[in-house]
Amino acid sequence: MRFIHTSDWHLGRTLYNQSLLDEQAGMLQSLLELIRIHEVDALLIVGDIFDRSVPPAAAVTLLDDFLDQVTTTLGVAVVAIGGNHDGQERIAFGARQMAGAGLYIQGPVSAEVKPVRIDGKDGSAFFYPIPYAEPALVRHLLDEDVHTHEEAMAALLGQVQAHDSQGLPKVVLSHCFLDGGSESDSERPLSIGGADRISPSLFAPFDYVALGHLHGPQYKGAEHVRYSGSPLKYSFSEQHQKKSVTLVELKPNQPPVIELLPITPKRDVRVIEGLLAELLERGKTDAAREDYLMVRLLDTQAILEPMAKLRAVYPNVLHLERTGLMQARQVDGPGRERIQKSELAMFEDFFSQVQGEQMTEPQRQLMTELISSLHKGDAQ
Amino acid sequence: MRFIHTSDWHLGRTLYNQSLLDEQAGMLQSLLELIRIHEVDALLIVGDIFDRSVPPAAAVTLLDDFLDQVTTTLGVAVVAIGGNHDGQERIAFGARQMAGAGLYIQGPVSAEVKPVRIDGKDGSAFFYPIPYAEPALVRHLLDEDVHTHEEAMAALLGQVQAHDSQGLPKVVLSHCFLDGGSESDSERPLSIGGADRISPSLFAPFDYVALGHLHGPQYKGAEHVRYSGSPLKYSFSEQHQKKSVTLVELKPNQPPVIELLPITPKRDVRVIEGLLAELLERGKTDAAREDYLMVRLLDTQAILEPMAKLRAVYPNVLHLERTGLMQARQVDGPGRERIQKSELAMFEDFFSQVQGEQMTEPQRQLMTELISSLHKGDAQ
Repeated sequence: MRFIHTSDWHLGRTLYNQSLLDEQAGMLQSLLELIRIHEVDALLIVGDIFDRSVPPAAAVTLLDDFLDQVTTTLGVAVVAIGGNHDGQERIAFGARQMAGAGLYIQGPVSAEVKPVRIDGKDGSAFFYPIPYAEPALVRHLLDEDVHTHEEAMAALLGQVQAHDSQGLPKVVLSHCFLDGGSESDSERPLSIGGADRISPSLFAPFDYVALGHLHGPQYKGAEHVRYSGSPLKYSFSEQHQKKSVTLVELKPNQPPVIELLPITPKRDVRVIEGLLAELLERGKTDAAREDYLMVRLLDTQAILEPMAKLRAVYPNVLHLERTGLMQARQVDGPGRERIQKSELAMFEDFFSQVQGEQMTEPQRQLMTELISSLHKGDAQ
Repeated sequence: MRFIHTSDWHLGRTLYNQSLLDEQAGMLQSLLELIRIHEVDALLIVGDIFDRSVPPAAAVTLLDDFLDQVTTTLGVAVVAIGGNHDGQERIAFGARQMAGAGLYIQGPVSAEVKPVRIDGKDGSAFFYPIPYAEPALVRHLLDEDVHTHEEAMAALLGQVQAHDSQGLPKVVLSHCFLDGGSESDSERPLSIGGADRISPSLFAPFDYVALGHLHGPQYKGAEHVRYSGSPLKYSFSEQHQKKSVTLVELKPNQPPVIELLPITPKRDVRVIEGLLAELLERGKTDAAREDYLMVRLLDTQAILEPMAKLRAVYPNVLHLERTGLMQARQVDGPGRERIQKSELAMFEDFFSQVQGEQMTEPQRQLMTELISSLHKGDAQ
């Protein structure tokens, strides 16, 4: 039994107002190829399939076409659960009618965890989909005295343990936050103050645990209790993460064989840093200049329209930080004399950029007097 | 081959801010019972299933549960198309995976009309789902020179005529506006100025044509080219319509046998008219006083909090028209003397309602002077 575990697609997401749908379509195309090459029996999508409860219609169509290719064209089963970003009632529409086609979508958590048996080319397994759920909802559904995310999960996992899998491996799907997990900037907290944390040891008894929520691939407590991470970078804090999906092979009486399959995006998400002139020069020969970029400019003087200049070379600059200018300002301090000097310096920068030449000494003198007289006006 | 034809459910709709979800759940319960009693082979839902592109999650769940009962519990096939109110990409999610379970949902129009063959207990038929589509979309998809709704429909129906049904009856599903159809106040126009009208004769060649869009049940051109109408009243203009779903039986070499099956709502939508005192008195013995009501008050004088008084007896008054007052005002005209008299009369009404007794003559005198002095103030 071989499957691919992935999560946190966030279809329909934007990064600094840039739609990522084209990237996401590319990612799904790569994933389709991996499913085909590795001849897997199932694909697990562990929540945050969409970025929000009501995704753009184009994102719905993108997913629909992808799932049809996986289940119909490739004949591979899909087990999917809702995450904290998904509109769970919405993704669950028609789920009972889809199950016959090998598409198992678990929307809102139900009182009973519903096992899905998948018979692979070479071995079978039971999959237990546990979508993201607030503890209050679990308390209501199970009528048990649970208050924390951990207690809610323990109650649901109790059902998984009690289920008779006829000796077949048990694979749990869950969208949650394991204690000690590493966060990125692109996950939405499940609750404030750490009350969302669940001990990894709860999951240890199962054969494999496919987790979603954290965007960096990682395991917690044991190697078979893992986050696949998101297949794309959704914040600049993830610039150094290697994005992948997780290939898992279950073999009788052995620990699962796990391999991370890299996902290479059409355009990477990364941060570049330097002086404007340097960056523009470097960009001329940068094969990846169409990446989604955050630029940290080290220049300490004012620059006219830096974004426009950068985008002429790097078309997908999404965000600009004037790191140099901010540091210079912090060192300078806000004294009146310093500000006056700085105003003159700023105007000199502006002048030279607009005119293409430096100010002459008489011009500089005139400007100094003008600034000074303006400040006198302030004081009156 | 026997089926029920219905349309324009508008799940999630509100009437004067009153959610109708409870009524809609009751309607679906009645429909389920009719499907069971009449042992139909299929249910046709001809568009405007939801009231808007993104319906409330509760409406999604309501439909999901209903469709599961029809297809799984009763084993009856469902063919559904999107109307102009539906988010067609959204309702089409997973449609290809649902088809195996006998749930056929056609979201956006496609270049090829996809026939659905249903084998009934006693005879088979082909169903041709043609969802609502703008002519521009049909022009783009078919790459044909169509500009009007009629030309677009003719192009699509051409495919239906060309399809070889192996001698089986052809049933067309379409959400559109037939020329000469009777409108209510609750349909959203498809386009301005009549460009949305389609000649009924286009549909005449088929064995049955299940239409959606118009909320009153009716046929156009021929008895087998019909609107089922909505199963609930969605505006007060529909107060005298008899709501129903349409039972159709196809028999070889005979015209279809058609019967309207009434749908009785838990609460009716109707208009009542009269003097406040009369209506309040009548309400005490009105078994249907929980109906959704528009009240037309014939009283010609001012009344303090008429809505609160009415709702004490009729809890679901949704709208109030002061018909009497408006007529009185129109007759009176706006002369200064008349307005003064009317102000005194209004205050007398107010006084008697608050105090429970008539004003005395000295009180009336005082009030007259006060109003008069206020008007002098106006003139200055």
